[in-house]
Amino acid sequence: MTESALVRTPLSPTERSTPHREADRVRTDRADLDAVLDAEVLCHIGVLLHGTPSVLPTIYGRDGDTLYLHGSTGAGNLRAAMLGDISVAVTLVDGVVYARSAMHCSMNYRSAVVHGRAELVTDHATRLHALRVITEHAAPGTWDRARQPNKKELAATMVLALDLTEASVKVRTGGPNDEPDDIARGGVWSGVLPLRRVWDTPIAAADLDPEVPTPASVHDREPLG
Amino acid sequence: MTESALVRTPLSPTERSTPHREADRVRTDRADLDAVLDAEVLCHIGVLLHGTPSVLPTIYGRDGDTLYLHGSTGAGNLRAAMLGDISVAVTLVDGVVYARSAMHCSMNYRSAVVHGRAELVTDHATRLHALRVITEHAAPGTWDRARQPNKKELAATMVLALDLTEASVKVRTGGPNDEPDDIARGGVWSGVLPLRRVWDTPIAAADLDPEVPTPASVHDREPLG
Repeated sequence: MTESALVRTPLSPTERSTPHREADRVRTDRADLDAVLDAEVLCHIGVLLHGTPSVLPTIYGRDGDTLYLHGSTGAGNLRAAMLGDISVAVTLVDGVVYARSAMHCSMNYRSAVVHGRAELVTDHATRLHALRVITEHAAPGTWDRARQPNKKELAATMVLALDLTEASVKVRTGGPNDEPDDIARGGVWSGVLPLRRVWDTPIAAADLDPEVPTPASVHDREPLG
Repeated sequence: MTESALVRTPLSPTERSTPHREADRVRTDRADLDAVLDAEVLCHIGVLLHGTPSVLPTIYGRDGDTLYLHGSTGAGNLRAAMLGDISVAVTLVDGVVYARSAMHCSMNYRSAVVHGRAELVTDHATRLHALRVITEHAAPGTWDRARQPNKKELAATMVLALDLTEASVKVRTGGPNDEPDDIARGGVWSGVLPLRRVWDTPIAAADLDPEVPTPASVHDREPLG
């Protein structure tokens, strides 16, 4: 991920982006935000649609302190995203925490929630740059290998930019936080079942010429997370 | 997942839950909704907080046509969830679609988005049932093995129920949908890189008596998805 911003702004949480609970899980370093965003490919955007909150899953890309989103100009959710503040959440589940009591069961996770007003990107060069950033984040190696967007595709695509200045990051790691009484009682297994993601063998398109080799960026893609 | 509803209502999308694009990806069978909800452990809740949408990642459980959510009574996001309609999204990424053109790159995914008004569950027996459903969904086998919630824990916990009557489900599978011109030109790899999740070896808590065996529900847990 290139760092186009020469000066990185600090994370500056407002009331809505300040976690009030589980203070030990809160991270305030911008590097923690970047790490969460770079480790995942899917985000969930919260927008106000027809007067109520609506959540939209989509891909994204990050360049420095900017998060790029895109979609069809026909997507109502995404059009709604320009009409007011939005919230974008990126969450990775790293494991299930099995505790000695039901209520101490938990998840190990990395979570980023960004708030702000998404701006419609209209400048041609910036739009292309944003689409490159999003494409390379979801499918690294694609931009230079595949055909780039044509006029018709660009006309049908909306690109949004969200400033990464108002964000909260929470990370939970480690084992269960069992109650002393439950530990003393003993007998109940307690621990973590770690979860991770793996890429399986690439499946070539049915109409692909078998002479075209699978690119290293696909068959050697680094695991997510 | 038990089916407590004797009569299953059909999925009845309203305007806000009706996908207007990519009709080939839309599923309208309630079994498809159930399958998505049962395959994942994490959801993203969209609520209206301080006048703007906010997205909150959390765990959940399903029983029949009811989605249960819980959290601390001190969680502002969750309190906000009771003040108006919410949106709950559950999304699984099954692979990255590498196309012959950048704009045809995509993801294979299963997505459910539910809309509705969450009700605060106040009845003691229903609260316990909901917590059991949520716990067993996140950490199967825990409820009967671990200590169940005590009065203090129950007092600190908010339980919400969301009716699964207004939901949309979208599923994308299969290879890229490349343009005929791009296929004819040839030379660019096109296909899918499948993604799946695996459980790693369980890690016992540091303070666990080594005589306590790892339960089968942990070390033999079925893969998510």
